[in-house]
Amino acid sequence: MLHKRHIQAIKQMVGEENCYDDKAHLVAYCYDATRERYEPDAVVFPRNEQDVSAVLAYCNDQKIPVIPRGAGSGFTGGALPVKGGIILALEKHFNRILEIDEKNLIARVQPGVVNKAFQEAVEAKGLFYPPDPASQEYSTLGGNVSENAGGMRAAKYGITKDYVMALRAVLPNGDVIRAGKKTIKDVAGFNVAGILIASEGSLAVITEITLKLIAKPKLTRSAMGVFADIESAMNAVYKSMASGITPVAMEFLDNLSICAVEERFHKGLPTQAGAILITQVDGDLLEQLDFQLEVLQECFKANGCVEFKIAQSDDEAADLWFARRNVSQSITIYGKKKLNEDITVPRSALPELLKRIGILSKEYGFKIPCFGHTGDGNVHVNVMVSDPNDAQSMQRGYACIEEIFKIAIELEGTLSGEHGIGLSKAPFMRLAFSEAEMNLFANIKKAFDPNNILNPGKMGLSMG
Amino acid sequence: MLHKRHIQAIKQMVGEENCYDDKAHLVAYCYDATRERYEPDAVVFPRNEQDVSAVLAYCNDQKIPVIPRGAGSGFTGGALPVKGGIILALEKHFNRILEIDEKNLIARVQPGVVNKAFQEAVEAKGLFYPPDPASQEYSTLGGNVSENAGGMRAAKYGITKDYVMALRAVLPNGDVIRAGKKTIKDVAGFNVAGILIASEGSLAVITEITLKLIAKPKLTRSAMGVFADIESAMNAVYKSMASGITPVAMEFLDNLSICAVEERFHKGLPTQAGAILITQVDGDLLEQLDFQLEVLQECFKANGCVEFKIAQSDDEAADLWFARRNVSQSITIYGKKKLNEDITVPRSALPELLKRIGILSKEYGFKIPCFGHTGDGNVHVNVMVSDPNDAQSMQRGYACIEEIFKIAIELEGTLSGEHGIGLSKAPFMRLAFSEAEMNLFANIKKAFDPNNILNPGKMGLSMG
Repeated sequence: MLHKRHIQAIKQMVGEENCYDDKAHLVAYCYDATRERYEPDAVVFPRNEQDVSAVLAYCNDQKIPVIPRGAGSGFTGGALPVKGGIILALEKHFNRILEIDEKNLIARVQPGVVNKAFQEAVEAKGLFYPPDPASQEYSTLGGNVSENAGGMRAAKYGITKDYVMALRAVLPNGDVIRAGKKTIKDVAGFNVAGILIASEGSLAVITEITLKLIAKPKLTRSAMGVFADIESAMNAVYKSMASGITPVAMEFLDNLSICAVEERFHKGLPTQAGAILITQVDGDLLEQLDFQLEVLQECFKANGCVEFKIAQSDDEAADLWFARRNVSQSITIYGKKKLNEDITVPRSALPELLKRIGILSKEYGFKIPCFGHTGDGNVHVNVMVSDPNDAQSMQRGYACIEEIFKIAIELEGTLSGEHGIGLSKAPFMRLAFSEAEMNLFANIKKAFDPNNILNPGKMGLSMG
Repeated sequence: MLHKRHIQAIKQMVGEENCYDDKAHLVAYCYDATRERYEPDAVVFPRNEQDVSAVLAYCNDQKIPVIPRGAGSGFTGGALPVKGGIILALEKHFNRILEIDEKNLIARVQPGVVNKAFQEAVEAKGLFYPPDPASQEYSTLGGNVSENAGGMRAAKYGITKDYVMALRAVLPNGDVIRAGKKTIKDVAGFNVAGILIASEGSLAVITEITLKLIAKPKLTRSAMGVFADIESAMNAVYKSMASGITPVAMEFLDNLSICAVEERFHKGLPTQAGAILITQVDGDLLEQLDFQLEVLQECFKANGCVEFKIAQSDDEAADLWFARRNVSQSITIYGKKKLNEDITVPRSALPELLKRIGILSKEYGFKIPCFGHTGDGNVHVNVMVSDPNDAQSMQRGYACIEEIFKIAIELEGTLSGEHGIGLSKAPFMRLAFSEAEMNLFANIKKAFDPNNILNPGKMGLSMG
């Protein structure tokens, strides 16, 4: 527990009304989307960069853990204060879009801006910010940068790191740094912005983000392909992505996922199908969209697609996407506890990945519905455990997850495509990284945060 | 000078035929494109990653500088052994394309592969690797990664860092690490690949590069816009880049550059023009190309373009690009010594940048031809000094360059868009970075290279 004098000192820096250690606040900031709970010792709402700097310098001096937090919507415990300390909550005073520079297709934002609000603001100006994590309605851009968030449009448009041009951040010692530039090209000094992205709040506290925007494509069209079996669908994914056109998104639902959505929402989905692929193309000209849809249709059909349905209106397109958007909540029909992971493999390994998950499902006796962003090889794998209170069952669930991680690594994939490592995946870091690599991570951490005050206990870092 | 026993030790590791300390080798590896000369103590050609590891571990132990080298074509002295030591030359045994994975649009290469050879190999398979530095005929992909090379196509397709998916590298202590994955999404561990890019060989020796490829657009068309004055041309650049379409390239030549090319090559260029813009669009459909050219023409004309010429054949397109490709050698008519820098600013600052360079030219009495990649704000500024043997004149030249750097920074630009810092720009780092930022760079360097053996004396790092 934090001594009262620390609370007093921090209140003096940020004002009484921006520092709390009452039970209500500690409970309100003890969770994230993992549903694990760790109470902090205090919750601080810095008003500006100077506050962030003052609080960090103090905590660095006093060796008090500081955990930066956006919306707390992460899936891996990145915002949980596992070692106590201070939650530095940025959603309150760091939620402004500072500039949308239409001349240079750039925006400057504070880290607490919600992704969707930002997307809407730039689209009102005819511009486009593609990264669209499923959490877009509530997750913040600071959190998106810290976890390098992806989304459905990554197949064509890439992920958060592809849009971060520059950052302002505060180091644990209170130093304010700028990293990167408002220019596409910049080769002066180490790529500090590059390493702050995906660093899960463990190297510095981001206080401002400069993002690249692009022109919003004028037209989009969506289509669905129905496949008899999942292997055909996975073949269609990688073959169509290599066919010379690049759809915005190429999402899939396996049979269990289709059936779950259908059971809950009665949308007339093909419950006999082994898998469906839902895809979108975009561009400025109708001819372009037609061309892309033709190539996709041909490629799908050459790979066992039994029905290819192009949405003929916005409503029809919305219907196609409804299934995809509601699958995560629907699959809870298969078990009270969902162990969901976001492994990613090279696209051509998708058929093998799904085949081996099917075998594991039989071996372990769990239903494992899979869906997700196959266009970039990112599969949401969900091991459904019927009774989370049955310790043995849960243990088997985690063992099954570990097998899945091993398969992903074996297929040259990664533990996490979007969610990060945080707390949840920390035990598996040694599956993916060598001793030398783990040592390098620890050395990088020390270069930024020698006292290990920023978000300690995450990412499997051993700080010796 | 390196003791003979070190040479003997290294010969035992890599074989007699891969380690030299004779004068011929030391001279052959003492230069780069800066024309400055620093002889190394030995030149080593590692045969494989194990050799790199053994040599580094030994040199780390003995505190011997190691300078990784590709083609030695850098413009800022990145490959110069300013503190002596060993040139680790990768062009001999690290020049293989290991894999072109058409299923996943990925290639694996060794760092000594020449950029253009790689482009041709992937294009033979209908694929496309966009980064095209002017040095593409001889510069290596390892060098491109280490300097984060750009090129003409960056306006649409980005730069080297946008294509690096994963790296293998050897740390100074000999540890082999992998960084990044063959997947678009990967959020496991720190983004080590991100910080190795543009690190100018000062953090690790890259031994393998995994690159993203894209499908090669089927069609391209080129056009030229002629402008009465440079300000109009610069306005046309940023307004057309913000108009909703994205040309592959948007290059410019100012009046001095146009006149220089015309004087040498008599191509009928508009020598009365204040500037010309040369641009290219691409796509898979003719309609797309027509649409983009229409938008560009409209935007150019709205900003004072007096003539817009669309190339009607491949030959006409080649003619348009001839001027751009031959400008660098042509401007030597203005002075024996060319102080060329590659500053970059946000595109909307281009009119102001060029105006202020014009003023400096008058103030200092130097001709300063400018050309380059305006589509991404990257301008090659050339301060032409008539007599490089006149020390006072050279001093004024450098003072002028410093003024230009200050203007670039003031306009939120960068010291270097493509060439890096190396030796040449090291004295100017403090113009661009704060004490805190310079300290952070030094700490990052120490995290990778605590004994400062890798390419020491570069980037203005003070290793205290």
